[in-house]
Amino acid sequence: MKQNLFPVVILAVANLYAADDVLNHVSAHEARFGEISRQIWENAELGFHETKSSALLQQELRANGFDVRANLAGMPTAFTATFGSGKPVIALMGEFDALPGLSQKDVPTQSPVVAGAPGHGCGHNLLGSASALAAVAIKEEMQARGLKGTLRYYGTPAEEGGGGKIYMLHAGLFKDVDAVLAWHPGDSNRVSGSLLANNGGRFKFYGVAAHAAAAPDHGRSALDGAMIMLNAIEFLREHVPQETRIHYIITNGGQAPNIVPAFAEVNLVARNPDAQVLNGIWERIMDCAKAGALASGTRMEFEQGTNYSNVLLNDTLGDVLGRAIKKAGGYQFTPEEKKFAEELQKTLGAPVKSPGPDKVFPDKTEAVSSASSDSGDVSWVVPTAQITAATFVPGVGAHTWQAAACAGSSIGRKGMVVAARTLALGAIELFDNPDELKSARDSFETRLAGRKWTTRIPADGKPPLDYATK
Amino acid sequence: MKQNLFPVVILAVANLYAADDVLNHVSAHEARFGEISRQIWENAELGFHETKSSALLQQELRANGFDVRANLAGMPTAFTATFGSGKPVIALMGEFDALPGLSQKDVPTQSPVVAGAPGHGCGHNLLGSASALAAVAIKEEMQARGLKGTLRYYGTPAEEGGGGKIYMLHAGLFKDVDAVLAWHPGDSNRVSGSLLANNGGRFKFYGVAAHAAAAPDHGRSALDGAMIMLNAIEFLREHVPQETRIHYIITNGGQAPNIVPAFAEVNLVARNPDAQVLNGIWERIMDCAKAGALASGTRMEFEQGTNYSNVLLNDTLGDVLGRAIKKAGGYQFTPEEKKFAEELQKTLGAPVKSPGPDKVFPDKTEAVSSASSDSGDVSWVVPTAQITAATFVPGVGAHTWQAAACAGSSIGRKGMVVAARTLALGAIELFDNPDELKSARDSFETRLAGRKWTTRIPADGKPPLDYATK
Amino acid sequence: MKQNLFPVVILAVANLYAADDVLNHVSAHEARFGEISRQIWENAELGFHETKSSALLQQELRANGFDVRANLAGMPTAFTATFGSGKPVIALMGEFDALPGLSQKDVPTQSPVVAGAPGHGCGHNLLGSASALAAVAIKEEMQARGLKGTLRYYGTPAEEGGGGKIYMLHAGLFKDVDAVLAWHPGDSNRVSGSLLANNGGRFKFYGVAAHAAAAPDHGRSALDGAMIMLNAIEFLREHVPQETRIHYIITNGGQAPNIVPAFAEVNLVARNPDAQVLNGIWERIMDCAKAGALASGTRMEFEQGTNYSNVLLNDTLGDVLGRAIKKAGGYQFTPEEKKFAEELQKTLGAPVKSPGPDKVFPDKTEAVSSASSDSGDVSWVVPTAQITAATFVPGVGAHTWQAAACAGSSIGRKGMVVAARTLALGAIELFDNPDELKSARDSFETRLAGRKWTTRIPADGKPPLDYATK
Amino acid sequence: MKQNLFPVVILAVANLYAADDVLNHVSAHEARFGEISRQIWENAELGFHETKSSALLQQELRANGFDVRANLAGMPTAFTATFGSGKPVIALMGEFDALPGLSQKDVPTQSPVVAGAPGHGCGHNLLGSASALAAVAIKEEMQARGLKGTLRYYGTPAEEGGGGKIYMLHAGLFKDVDAVLAWHPGDSNRVSGSLLANNGGRFKFYGVAAHAAAAPDHGRSALDGAMIMLNAIEFLREHVPQETRIHYIITNGGQAPNIVPAFAEVNLVARNPDAQVLNGIWERIMDCAKAGALASGTRMEFEQGTNYSNVLLNDTLGDVLGRAIKKAGGYQFTPEEKKFAEELQKTLGAPVKSPGPDKVFPDKTEAVSSASSDSGDVSWVVPTAQITAATFVPGVGAHTWQAAACAGSSIGRKGMVVAARTLALGAIELFDNPDELKSARDSFETRLAGRKWTTRIPADGKPPLDYATK
Repeated sequence: MKQNLFPVVILAVANLYAADDVLNHVSAHEARFGEISRQIWENAELGFHETKSSALLQQELRANGFDVRANLAGMPTAFTATFGSGKPVIALMGEFDALPGLSQKDVPTQSPVVAGAPGHGCGHNLLGSASALAAVAIKEEMQARGLKGTLRYYGTPAEEGGGGKIYMLHAGLFKDVDAVLAWHPGDSNRVSGSLLANNGGRFKFYGVAAHAAAAPDHGRSALDGAMIMLNAIEFLREHVPQETRIHYIITNGGQAPNIVPAFAEVNLVARNPDAQVLNGIWERIMDCAKAGALASGTRMEFEQGTNYSNVLLNDTLGDVLGRAIKKAGGYQFTPEEKKFAEELQKTLGAPVKSPGPDKVFPDKTEAVSSASSDSGDVSWVVPTAQITAATFVPGVGAHTWQAAACAGSSIGRKGMVVAARTLALGAIELFDNPDELKSARDSFETRLAGRKWTTRIPADGKPPLDYATK
Repeated sequence: MKQNLFPVVILAVANLYAADDVLNHVSAHEARFGEISRQIWENAELGFHETKSSALLQQELRANGFDVRANLAGMPTAFTATFGSGKPVIALMGEFDALPGLSQKDVPTQSPVVAGAPGHGCGHNLLGSASALAAVAIKEEMQARGLKGTLRYYGTPAEEGGGGKIYMLHAGLFKDVDAVLAWHPGDSNRVSGSLLANNGGRFKFYGVAAHAAAAPDHGRSALDGAMIMLNAIEFLREHVPQETRIHYIITNGGQAPNIVPAFAEVNLVARNPDAQVLNGIWERIMDCAKAGALASGTRMEFEQGTNYSNVLLNDTLGDVLGRAIKKAGGYQFTPEEKKFAEELQKTLGAPVKSPGPDKVFPDKTEAVSSASSDSGDVSWVVPTAQITAATFVPGVGAHTWQAAACAGSSIGRKGMVVAARTLALGAIELFDNPDELKSARDSFETRLAGRKWTTRIPADGKPPLDYATK
Repeated sequence: MKQNLFPVVILAVANLYAADDVLNHVSAHEARFGEISRQIWENAELGFHETKSSALLQQELRANGFDVRANLAGMPTAFTATFGSGKPVIALMGEFDALPGLSQKDVPTQSPVVAGAPGHGCGHNLLGSASALAAVAIKEEMQARGLKGTLRYYGTPAEEGGGGKIYMLHAGLFKDVDAVLAWHPGDSNRVSGSLLANNGGRFKFYGVAAHAAAAPDHGRSALDGAMIMLNAIEFLREHVPQETRIHYIITNGGQAPNIVPAFAEVNLVARNPDAQVLNGIWERIMDCAKAGALASGTRMEFEQGTNYSNVLLNDTLGDVLGRAIKKAGGYQFTPEEKKFAEELQKTLGAPVKSPGPDKVFPDKTEAVSSASSDSGDVSWVVPTAQITAATFVPGVGAHTWQAAACAGSSIGRKGMVVAARTLALGAIELFDNPDELKSARDSFETRLAGRKWTTRIPADGKPPLDYATK
Repeated sequence: MKQNLFPVVILAVANLYAADDVLNHVSAHEARFGEISRQIWENAELGFHETKSSALLQQELRANGFDVRANLAGMPTAFTATFGSGKPVIALMGEFDALPGLSQKDVPTQSPVVAGAPGHGCGHNLLGSASALAAVAIKEEMQARGLKGTLRYYGTPAEEGGGGKIYMLHAGLFKDVDAVLAWHPGDSNRVSGSLLANNGGRFKFYGVAAHAAAAPDHGRSALDGAMIMLNAIEFLREHVPQETRIHYIITNGGQAPNIVPAFAEVNLVARNPDAQVLNGIWERIMDCAKAGALASGTRMEFEQGTNYSNVLLNDTLGDVLGRAIKKAGGYQFTPEEKKFAEELQKTLGAPVKSPGPDKVFPDKTEAVSSASSDSGDVSWVVPTAQITAATFVPGVGAHTWQAAACAGSSIGRKGMVVAARTLALGAIELFDNPDELKSARDSFETRLAGRKWTTRIPADGKPPLDYATK
């Protein structure tokens, strides 16, 4: 093998030089898309209600020459924006939904804009904007160099529970894609590992009300059904793989203490690094729920909630993004940003162990983050790789007011540029070397090992457009 | 004793004739107080918020020559209305609070005036009005016959959980009373037995939140605390006297399934025919709650709720009211009322076994109803007896929309008159024969058997004026 | 009806005089049968192993002219002893099985003859002997007075769990009987009320063993199955009639803590005053067991244990025995017996409220004792009444060493004579007045109210001859 | 550093040559000690009852010139055998206790010698014999080469629960030791990682018996206490680190279903890779037990059982044994052994993934086996390293009849020689290079990180000499 080393290096260097040009295009647009990210942050719309956010991104991509198709798969805020034609088809994804109750100003102390209102505690204002920024830069580089193929941006709504990507998958919208390059906000710059598969929903128990003092024997307690189920769930924990998570709340535990509860409701989520293992566990969870109903003489109905697959890692694309993020590089805090970061870190209540935003970790990893996402489902259908960019101050976790504060600040916008640079470099590498897509497909098949993507979200189901507000 | 029988009978007959006159006074005012009961029914104010209802009764009693003192024992709607002076002191009690969510028109189908608004599902609009009607009639008879002593009406707010009478007891307002004659709406005319003692409140568990997928071992689940407590409560059931009742709901079962619950809350009520037995059981319930906190590594706080004593029956006064209700007599339905009753009974879903309103059951009973009331507490401090009058269509239970419908109808007002007649006859018998009060006191001491009234509602506590609305 | 009163009284008096003669026959044999009771007490054989006890009674009855048929319904120790022929058929029943672990000398301090060996803690040594004594006396009186009909003694094994009478019922051995007069040892002389119906058995859970540290997720815990079932049972308690009893032990809770239990076993008994209500509850108990298996991924098998019906009271026969026990009378303690009684009572740990053996309570009662017996099953097939006789020192309960001590003492033998006298008087009254049997049949049909005897013990089942020793 | 490489290598090679000689001594004695291992296998004595086994090893070591001291630290079967004097002190350890119920012939089908009798299912017959074989070989090599220092063999009884080494540690018997080289039978040849710390014992609940039908409210159920505790334990699982194990059985779940259980007992073991983390978890387990008692009104007593520390790995000694096992080498199966192995593997019910006995894995590992041992406690007091040798057919786990079969076969004896060779080579390397002991001490201190060995087995406690038989 030794004799081939040198020419390969030459080739790689040549590519790198060409690829580097795309970074200039990123730079040219980064202020504009930073502004867009801020507008989305200020609007902070919940899943399936991202009307303004989606429109803003569509308009910008259309203005940059993309062919935009909106209102897809039954979701008004879902869209695609396509440039070019023919093979290969390289895709980016943009999310833009906010989280309930996380309204927050861009200051390092907890301070909502409107108390109780939604906020971008997961940085999706940056997510959709950075991918769009990358798309515009790639398009310009494709045009500049006459690169063949199709670039497509997926505007994917309601990642926080609504599962927009799953309905887009069901609608066949990802059918022709060769590779998806994705990213997510975080507190460091790195190639991402996998995410936990999850499944969840509401277990509704229906019993018979009765006066709890006068005639408790005439009643059948729905709360008993829920509690027997949940007690059984606790016994289940010992007998599932230790990486499994099962967590729940009781969303309705009865109306008044002197009435035998005729209704009770449990909201339960289970997770496992492997969607198929999770399926087996889920059947046992359903058995616990059925047992609760059986033993209490009540009736149980299950209402499907979020069901996201774990991420099927792609070794080839992981390496592509690893090279890209290494070249994209991190960034430095300004003194003001440093002060902001330090003040914010004081509110975390725990020492910060995370590296700074100037560090970059380009190696692939098999590590499984405890989060879940519908990008996991995409990864079972299309070869996909993903990075994390440092949009949050080190130590800040997602779904916090601190993350919402960062997502509206210059720190968030700097991390967003790391992401856009990485995605742009990665995409150009793939357009330059279509053979890598064969390798990515091989890696995909290897990891798939004959399995197929499945989901409990029915293919003919209507997206739950009111899930975030009901 | 035989030689005394004849004169005694003569005396009784004489009294009875005299006593009968009070019924004329009742008749003279029954339309007016029926109207008042209807106004209170239309206002339907929750416990401690009975401003209009209380004012209406105060005004009427004041207009009839009673000395009214309002805003007592920290409760704006509590009042007394007194006529006469010196011994003996005979008391009547009037409640006037409504129940949440039971708004209902006076029609035999479920039809709220305002959906979700309060309604008089326990007939307290009749309760306060009938006692006031009786008070006015007794006063007129006392004046007519120059009877010595004091007649006092207690306007007692918030029976439905607020425990107004307990605060009035704590304030010493019942200190000089020799006998209390009371009544409650129901579906038949009878001397009442006992009621269950109850005690209840909110068990608040405080844990440590954590991401339920990423770091469940850092969390201490408040919901675990609640569930371990409640599981233990279920085990307790086998080992308490079988007449005991323990019932609960979970009022807060966590915020989101992916967060280890930092807070959870249980609302639990326990009952037993004997307040002292209940005290022992309650200590064991508290032990279960402490065990829940201990085993889950959480903290538990208890917030005292309603605590009502069982009724200490009074044999002498029970006989007095037995004689009185026998003479007061029942009533007949008009054809319209019969039709109303039949239509209403169709909505009950069970065959009606209750006797009609024309029947009267004058015998004392040791039977224990499954309800609880703060009139139980009064019965431990003052000799007290109580009747039920047929204000509801046979088969209709309290705390239902059907009861609310009846309480606003002519049926309710007819039952109210039965009650007023009985109370009036009973009170006059006592004013006529003060020696019976000695016997009532003896009966009281016998049943008390050296025990003392106790309550968990602290003597220096502020009444929970917002309990019905928070 | 008034004009018939006098002759009826005359007749009754005449009968009573005649009936009294049977007491002389009882007296003539009471020493002999007292001795037999002592021999059975000394042998103390467990259910279905009462070889010597059964043989002793058979031999005595055969020697007195009864036609003995043994080894019935698959049970070597079951027998009948018949005298006379034709209608009516009046039956007595004799039990003779002992209890495990209650070996005890006839002294007032706990002192086993052989530690751990069986003992007559339920006084069945007296039960079988007194009924045999009565049978011999009745036979002699029938002969003396030429009374028509059949007298039959049923030797019924294994009342303490084996249910000998049920197999005899299944075999049709009670088919021609008009009335059963029965008795049971106790601490007072009275007509008995009802007994609780019971049902029980073993719930066996089968799981999958695994190393509890290395691979708990490979295991399916049978103990989890049992515990989920039992937790559900605890929740059931609130929602069954309060007179219900459900009690259990865990007879196998796993082999070693480091092995996920592949087997676990629960022994559970439920009771209710009404066998049909119990049936409904039992279905819910089975649902709890099925839920335990379902939720734990294990398999459950149920092994039927004891199933006894409640007693169907018979008003006519209850009156017959009431009259009889009143005439039979109680007895006085000798000074030695009084001393024995007082010493024994000191070991009870609670003040004694029971009346002395000189008292007799002849009134029928609807009270339900907390015990269960297969004589309950007989009462659903044949009109049956039962008394309790004071064979135990006042305050001594069944199934205790104290009861075993009494059952071997002169106190036990005196109580046995009360029983024999009562049964003899009652049977002679029935032979004298066959019309009362019509009335007994009417009372039977009234209480039966169209229902039929049912049992979970299969008609074609083999008696569990080893139940007491396995 | 480069310039030192060559001399170091020279030194190592010189040492290796010298060290190799010790293998000749091993060979010279291996048949004899193989025979001893077989005798111990045939005797198969339970913990603290290993009289013959201990005597056999003592006798053999004494015969080979060791100074034997027996009956140590209160344990008749504990002993030390010492050769030489002064520093350094290098120690080997020998176990020789069997397991209950694992009696098995040396055949590949389940076939006990005496059903239910003890058997060497953990191969301790080989453990003690191989260490003794190594000791004799090392001694001869020390004599041959005049090596300075002390060699000591520790005969450590009752590893299977009795914790003999802990009592020897408490008695100060390891005080002067510089390094312990240890081994354990297994199904491959490798340097061992860590073991789980464990802790366990019996939770005894004391309640109040009562008739479960007649007076359940007078009873306080000990079984309720146990079940409330265990339910709480199930809730605990979610909130401990996922590597934790908690497993239990119910060893006494009540006497009879109609008696409220006055006694119940749980045997529970918990494990974690870190003894200090386990301590924190154990406190929470105790809280669950206390909560069970509190909530059920019962009393709980804890009886300490086995408590073993996790292994504190030693990097230096791990490398020493790594080099040694690499040189010691594995072995080949004969055709007969191959057939035996294949037949035995058929009984395992799972495909075998383990490597053959010809493979050797010399690299240190941080992996944590799911087993626990009192050698873990030694490792917190003295620098210790450990290997596993292939005494069992690949795929055979400890504590099985298959392991017992192997331990009596030529396969077991071949694995035992691998162990003896490795220990001998390792010990000689340490005697040759005392400086490595400094490095071992440094490694020890680094891993200890200022912590100290602790155990719940009290220093002044008597060894539970009857633990295996009570």
